[in-house]
Amino acid sequence: MNDPITPDPLPVLRPIGRIATPFRTVADCPRNGRQIEPAPVCHVTVFGAYLPGLASLETFSHLILLYALHEVRAAELTFTPPFDGTSRGVFATRAPRRPNPIGMAVVAFDGFAAPDTLKVRYLDCVDGTPLLDIKPYLPSTDSVPEADMGWLNRHRTR
Amino acid sequence: MNDPITPDPLPVLRPIGRIATPFRTVADCPRNGRQIEPAPVCHVTVFGAYLPGLASLETFSHLILLYALHEVRAAELTFTPPFDGTSRGVFATRAPRRPNPIGMAVVAFDGFAAPDTLKVRYLDCVDGTPLLDIKPYLPSTDSVPEADMGWLNRHRTR
Repeated sequence: MNDPITPDPLPVLRPIGRIATPFRTVADCPRNGRQIEPAPVCHVTVFGAYLPGLASLETFSHLILLYALHEVRAAELTFTPPFDGTSRGVFATRAPRRPNPIGMAVVAFDGFAAPDTLKVRYLDCVDGTPLLDIKPYLPSTDSVPEADMGWLNRHRTR
Repeated sequence: MNDPITPDPLPVLRPIGRIATPFRTVADCPRNGRQIEPAPVCHVTVFGAYLPGLASLETFSHLILLYALHEVRAAELTFTPPFDGTSRGVFATRAPRRPNPIGMAVVAFDGFAAPDTLKVRYLDCVDGTPLLDIKPYLPSTDSVPEADMGWLNRHRTR
Protein backbone atom coordinates (compact mmCIF):
# COMPACT_ATOMS: atom_id res chain seq x y z
CA MET A 1 0.00 0.00 0.00
CA ASN A 2 1.37 3.44 -0.88
CA ASP A 3 1.12 6.46 1.33
CA PRO A 4 -2.27 8.04 0.87
CA ILE A 5 -2.14 11.23 -1.17
CA THR A 6 -4.51 12.93 1.24
CA PRO A 7 -3.59 11.59 4.65
CA ASP A 8 -6.07 11.64 7.51
CA PRO A 9 -6.02 14.72 9.65
CA LEU A 10 -4.24 13.44 12.73
CA PRO A 11 -4.42 14.89 16.22
CA VAL A 12 -1.99 17.70 16.97
CA LEU A 13 -0.05 16.73 20.07
CA ARG A 14 0.15 19.04 23.04
CA PRO A 15 2.06 18.33 26.25
CA ILE A 16 -0.18 17.65 29.26
CA GLY A 17 2.74 17.76 31.69
CA ARG A 18 6.42 17.12 32.13
CA ILE A 19 8.51 14.20 33.37
CA ALA A 20 11.42 14.69 35.76
CA THR A 21 14.03 11.90 35.81
CA PRO A 22 17.63 11.69 37.07
CA PHE A 23 18.84 11.33 33.46
CA ARG A 24 20.04 14.74 32.29
CA THR A 25 21.04 13.73 28.77
CA VAL A 26 20.05 10.97 26.37
CA ALA A 27 23.49 9.43 26.97
CA ASP A 28 22.66 9.15 30.70
CA CYS A 29 19.47 7.15 30.09
CA PRO A 30 19.52 3.43 30.93
CA ARG A 31 18.70 0.90 28.21
CA ASN A 32 15.33 0.32 29.85
CA GLY A 33 13.51 1.48 32.94
CA ARG A 34 14.17 -1.73 34.87
CA GLN A 35 17.92 -1.88 34.25
CA ILE A 36 18.84 0.15 37.37
CA GLU A 37 18.05 -1.57 40.68
CA PRO A 38 16.57 -0.15 42.76
CA ALA A 39 14.83 1.96 40.14
CA PRO A 40 14.89 5.68 40.97
CA VAL A 41 11.62 7.42 41.79
CA CYS A 42 10.70 9.87 39.02
CA HIS A 43 8.18 12.72 39.18
CA VAL A 44 5.47 13.32 36.61
CA THR A 45 3.89 16.77 36.85
CA VAL A 46 0.55 17.38 35.12
CA PHE A 47 -0.36 20.90 33.94
CA GLY A 48 -3.22 22.59 35.82
CA ALA A 49 -5.76 22.44 33.02
CA TYR A 50 -5.62 18.63 33.00
CA LEU A 51 -5.84 17.90 36.74
CA PRO A 52 -9.54 16.89 36.69
CA GLY A 53 -8.50 13.97 34.44
CA LEU A 54 -6.55 12.43 37.34
CA ALA A 55 -9.67 11.55 39.40
CA SER A 56 -9.69 7.85 40.43
CA LEU A 57 -6.08 7.38 39.26
CA GLU A 58 -5.06 6.61 42.86
CA THR A 59 -6.85 3.24 42.65
CA PHE A 60 -4.26 1.76 40.23
CA SER A 61 -0.87 0.26 41.10
CA HIS A 62 0.67 0.62 37.65
CA LEU A 63 0.24 3.08 34.78
CA ILE A 64 1.12 3.39 31.11
CA LEU A 65 2.78 6.68 30.19
CA LEU A 66 3.05 8.02 26.66
CA TYR A 67 5.54 10.80 26.08
CA ALA A 68 7.20 12.71 23.27
CA LEU A 69 10.72 11.60 22.37
CA HIS A 70 11.31 15.29 21.81
CA GLU A 71 15.04 15.10 21.11
CA VAL A 72 14.53 12.93 18.02
CA ARG A 73 15.12 14.95 14.86
CA ALA A 74 14.83 12.24 12.17
CA ALA A 75 13.65 8.66 11.98
CA GLU A 76 16.06 5.82 11.24
CA LEU A 77 14.14 2.90 9.72
CA THR A 78 16.99 0.40 10.13
CA PHE A 79 20.05 0.49 12.32
CA THR A 80 22.52 -1.79 14.04
CA PRO A 81 22.10 -1.71 17.84
CA PRO A 82 25.48 -1.26 19.58
CA PHE A 83 24.83 -4.31 21.77
CA ASP A 84 23.81 -6.64 18.94
CA GLY A 85 25.70 -6.29 15.65
CA THR A 86 22.86 -7.13 13.24
CA SER A 87 20.80 -4.56 11.35
CA ARG A 88 17.24 -4.38 12.72
CA GLY A 89 14.08 -2.59 11.65
CA VAL A 90 13.15 0.22 14.03
CA PHE A 91 9.71 -1.35 14.64
CA ALA A 92 11.50 -4.45 16.01
CA THR A 93 13.24 -2.22 18.59
CA ARG A 94 12.29 0.26 21.29
CA ALA A 95 14.84 2.77 20.02
CA PRO A 96 13.73 6.44 19.94
CA ARG A 97 14.39 7.37 16.29
CA ARG A 98 10.93 6.29 15.09
CA PRO A 99 8.71 7.83 12.37
CA ASN A 100 6.32 8.96 15.14
CA PRO A 101 8.67 9.46 18.12
CA ILE A 102 6.31 8.51 20.93
CA GLY A 103 7.70 6.64 23.92
CA MET A 104 5.66 4.25 26.06
CA ALA A 105 6.52 2.94 29.53
CA VAL A 106 4.80 0.71 32.05
CA VAL A 107 5.52 2.25 35.46
CA ALA A 108 4.83 1.45 39.10
CA PHE A 109 2.65 4.21 40.59
CA ASP A 110 3.76 5.15 44.13
CA GLY A 111 1.09 7.81 44.73
CA PHE A 112 1.07 11.59 44.66
CA ALA A 113 3.91 13.84 45.86
CA ALA A 114 1.55 16.81 45.33
CA PRO A 115 -1.93 17.13 43.77
CA ASP A 116 -0.31 17.67 40.36
CA THR A 117 2.70 15.35 40.77
CA LEU A 118 2.86 11.56 40.48
CA LYS A 119 5.68 9.42 41.87
CA VAL A 120 6.55 6.59 39.46
CA ARG A 121 9.32 4.06 38.91
CA TYR A 122 10.77 2.37 35.80
CA LEU A 123 11.22 5.29 33.42
CA ASP A 124 14.22 5.51 31.11
CA CYS A 125 13.53 8.86 29.41
CA VAL A 126 15.51 12.06 29.67
CA ASP A 127 14.72 14.75 32.27
CA GLY A 128 12.18 17.27 30.96
CA THR A 129 10.38 14.87 28.61
CA PRO A 130 6.92 16.19 27.58
CA LEU A 131 4.08 13.99 28.87
CA LEU A 132 1.36 13.09 26.35
CA ASP A 133 -0.96 10.63 28.11
CA ILE A 134 -1.54 8.59 31.26
CA LYS A 135 -3.52 5.34 31.01
CA PRO A 136 -4.30 2.78 33.72
CA TYR A 137 -2.32 -0.46 33.32
CA LEU A 138 -4.74 -3.38 33.05
CA PRO A 139 -3.19 -6.84 33.43
CA SER A 140 -6.28 -8.34 31.77
CA THR A 141 -5.32 -6.77 28.44
CA ASP A 142 -1.72 -5.55 28.89
CA SER A 143 0.14 -8.41 30.62
CA VAL A 144 1.52 -11.31 28.55
CA PRO A 145 4.22 -12.96 30.70
CA GLU A 146 4.83 -15.74 28.19
CA ALA A 147 5.43 -13.44 25.19
CA ASP A 148 8.49 -14.24 23.07
CA MET A 149 11.04 -11.40 23.14
CA GLY A 150 12.42 -12.48 19.78
CA TRP A 151 15.91 -11.27 18.92
CA LEU A 152 15.97 -9.24 22.15
CA ASN A 153 15.70 -12.35 24.32
CA ARG A 154 19.44 -12.88 24.61
CA HIS A 155 19.91 -9.21 25.55
CA ARG A 156 17.31 -9.39 28.32
CA THR A 157 18.48 -7.40 31.35
CA ARG A 158 16.26 -9.12 33.92
CA MET B 1 2.28 23.77 37.38
CA ASN B 2 0.61 25.88 34.70
CA ASP B 3 0.73 25.19 31.02
CA PRO B 4 3.95 26.55 29.59
CA ILE B 5 3.46 29.73 27.57
CA THR B 6 5.84 28.48 24.93
CA PRO B 7 5.22 24.75 24.72
CA ASP B 8 7.85 22.39 23.35
CA PRO B 9 7.71 21.76 19.64
CA LEU B 10 6.17 18.30 19.55
CA PRO B 11 6.41 15.78 16.74
CA VAL B 12 3.82 16.12 13.99
CA LEU B 13 2.10 12.78 13.63
CA ARG B 14 1.87 11.07 10.29
CA PRO B 15 0.17 7.72 9.63
CA ILE B 16 2.59 4.88 8.84
CA GLY B 17 -0.21 2.52 7.85
CA ARG B 18 -3.81 1.57 8.39
CA ILE B 19 -5.62 -0.93 10.59
CA ALA B 20 -8.46 -3.08 9.25
CA THR B 21 -10.85 -4.50 11.86
CA PRO B 22 -14.37 -5.99 11.66
CA PHE B 23 -15.69 -2.97 13.61
CA ARG B 24 -17.21 -0.58 11.08
CA THR B 25 -18.28 2.12 13.54
CA VAL B 26 -17.20 3.19 17.02
CA ALA B 27 -20.49 1.76 18.31
CA ASP B 28 -19.49 -1.68 16.92
CA CYS B 29 -16.18 -1.75 18.86
CA PRO B 30 -15.92 -4.10 21.84
CA ARG B 31 -15.06 -2.65 25.25
CA ASN B 32 -11.58 -4.13 24.93
CA GLY B 33 -9.71 -6.31 22.49
CA ARG B 34 -10.05 -9.46 24.57
CA GLN B 35 -13.81 -9.24 25.13
CA ILE B 36 -14.73 -11.23 22.01
CA GLU B 37 -13.69 -14.91 22.08
CA PRO B 38 -12.22 -16.08 19.85
CA ALA B 39 -10.73 -12.68 19.01
CA PRO B 40 -11.03 -11.87 15.28
CA VAL B 41 -7.85 -11.63 13.22
CA CYS B 42 -7.24 -8.01 12.15
CA HIS B 43 -4.92 -6.77 9.41
CA VAL B 44 -2.39 -4.01 9.85
CA THR B 45 -1.05 -2.62 6.57
CA VAL B 46 2.15 -0.58 6.59
CA PHE B 47 2.77 2.04 3.88
CA GLY B 48 5.58 1.27 1.43
CA ALA B 49 7.98 3.92 2.67
CA TYR B 50 8.12 2.31 6.12
CA LEU B 51 8.56 -1.36 5.16
CA PRO B 52 12.33 -1.49 5.94
CA GLY B 53 11.40 -0.78 9.56
CA LEU B 54 9.69 -4.19 9.81
CA ALA B 55 12.95 -6.20 9.58
CA SER B 56 13.28 -8.70 12.47
CA LEU B 57 9.67 -8.10 13.57
CA GLU B 58 8.88 -11.75 12.76
CA THR B 59 10.87 -12.87 15.80
CA PHE B 60 8.30 -11.50 18.30
CA SER B 61 5.06 -13.17 19.43
CA HIS B 62 3.35 -10.00 20.66
CA LEU B 63 3.46 -6.35 19.64
CA ILE B 64 2.40 -2.96 20.98
CA LEU B 65 0.48 -0.86 18.47
CA LEU B 66 -0.06 2.88 18.80
CA TYR B 67 -2.76 4.42 16.65
CA ALA B 68 -4.69 7.65 16.22
CA LEU B 69 -8.15 7.72 17.76
CA HIS B 70 -9.03 9.75 14.70
CA GLU B 71 -12.75 10.02 15.34
CA VAL B 72 -12.24 11.93 18.60
CA ARG B 73 -13.14 15.60 18.18
CA ALA B 74 -12.76 16.90 21.75
CA ALA B 75 -11.32 15.65 25.02
CA GLU B 76 -13.56 14.94 28.00
CA LEU B 77 -11.49 15.21 31.19
CA THR B 78 -14.14 13.58 33.40
CA PHE B 79 -17.09 11.42 32.51
CA THR B 80 -19.31 8.71 33.95
CA PRO B 81 -18.74 5.35 32.25
CA PRO B 82 -22.05 3.74 31.25
CA PHE B 83 -21.09 0.50 33.03
CA ASP B 84 -20.04 2.14 36.31
CA GLY B 85 -22.10 5.14 37.47
CA THR B 86 -19.31 7.15 39.14
CA SER B 87 -17.52 10.10 37.52
CA ARG B 88 -13.92 9.19 36.61
CA GLY B 89 -10.96 11.14 35.32
CA VAL B 90 -10.12 10.25 31.73
CA PHE B 91 -6.54 9.28 32.72
CA ALA B 92 -8.06 6.61 34.99
CA THR B 93 -9.83 5.08 31.97
CA ARG B 94 -8.94 3.76 28.53
CA ALA B 95 -11.73 5.80 26.92
CA PRO B 96 -10.88 7.51 23.60
CA ARG B 97 -11.78 11.16 24.36
CA ARG B 98 -8.30 12.03 25.68
CA PRO B 99 -6.32 15.30 25.35
CA ASN B 100 -3.90 13.45 23.05
CA PRO B 101 -6.13 10.82 21.42
CA ILE B 102 -3.59 8.03 20.95
CA GLY B 103 -4.71 4.44 21.42
CA MET B 104 -2.42 1.64 22.55
CA ALA B 105 -3.01 -2.11 22.31
CA VAL B 106 -1.03 -5.22 23.16
CA VAL B 107 -1.70 -7.69 20.33
CA ALA B 108 -0.79 -11.25 19.45
CA PHE B 109 1.24 -11.27 16.23
CA ASP B 110 0.24 -14.13 13.91
CA GLY B 111 2.74 -13.36 11.14
CA PHE B 112 2.49 -11.68 7.76
CA ALA B 113 -0.44 -12.02 5.35
CA ALA B 114 1.68 -10.11 2.78
CA PRO B 115 5.05 -8.33 3.00
CA ASP B 116 3.24 -5.14 4.07
CA THR B 117 0.43 -6.70 6.11
CA LEU B 118 0.52 -8.08 9.65
CA LYS B 119 -2.09 -10.42 11.12
CA VAL B 120 -2.86 -9.52 14.74
CA ARG B 121 -5.46 -10.30 17.39
CA TYR B 122 -6.94 -8.30 20.31
CA LEU B 123 -7.69 -4.96 18.72
CA ASP B 124 -10.79 -2.99 19.66
CA CYS B 125 -10.42 0.02 17.34
CA VAL B 126 -12.61 1.00 14.43
CA ASP B 127 -11.89 -0.14 10.85
CA GLY B 128 -9.59 2.29 9.02
CA THR B 129 -7.75 3.52 12.11
CA PRO B 130 -4.45 5.26 11.21
CA LEU B 131 -1.40 3.36 12.51
CA LEU B 132 1.27 5.44 14.28
CA ASP B 133 3.82 2.98 15.64
CA ILE B 134 4.69 -0.69 16.10
CA LYS B 135 6.88 -1.70 19.06
CA PRO B 136 7.97 -5.19 20.17
CA TYR B 137 6.21 -6.34 23.34
CA LEU B 138 8.82 -7.18 25.98
CA PRO B 139 7.53 -9.11 29.01
CA SER B 140 10.64 -8.02 30.95
CA THR B 141 9.41 -4.41 30.98
CA ASP B 142 5.75 -4.57 29.86
CA SER B 143 4.19 -7.48 31.78
CA VAL B 144 2.93 -6.94 35.35
CA PRO B 145 0.45 -9.78 36.01
CA GLU B 146 -0.07 -8.73 39.66
CA ALA B 147 -0.96 -5.09 38.90
CA ASP B 148 -4.05 -3.73 40.67
CA MET B 149 -6.78 -2.78 38.18
CA GLY B 150 -8.24 -0.30 40.67
CA TRP B 151 -11.85 0.76 40.12
CA LEU B 152 -11.90 -1.31 36.90
CA ASN B 153 -11.32 -4.56 38.76
CA ARG B 154 -14.99 -5.33 39.28
CA HIS B 155 -15.69 -4.63 35.60
CA ARG B 156 -12.98 -7.05 34.42
CA THR B 157 -14.14 -8.99 31.41
CA ARG B 158 -11.73 -11.89 31.74
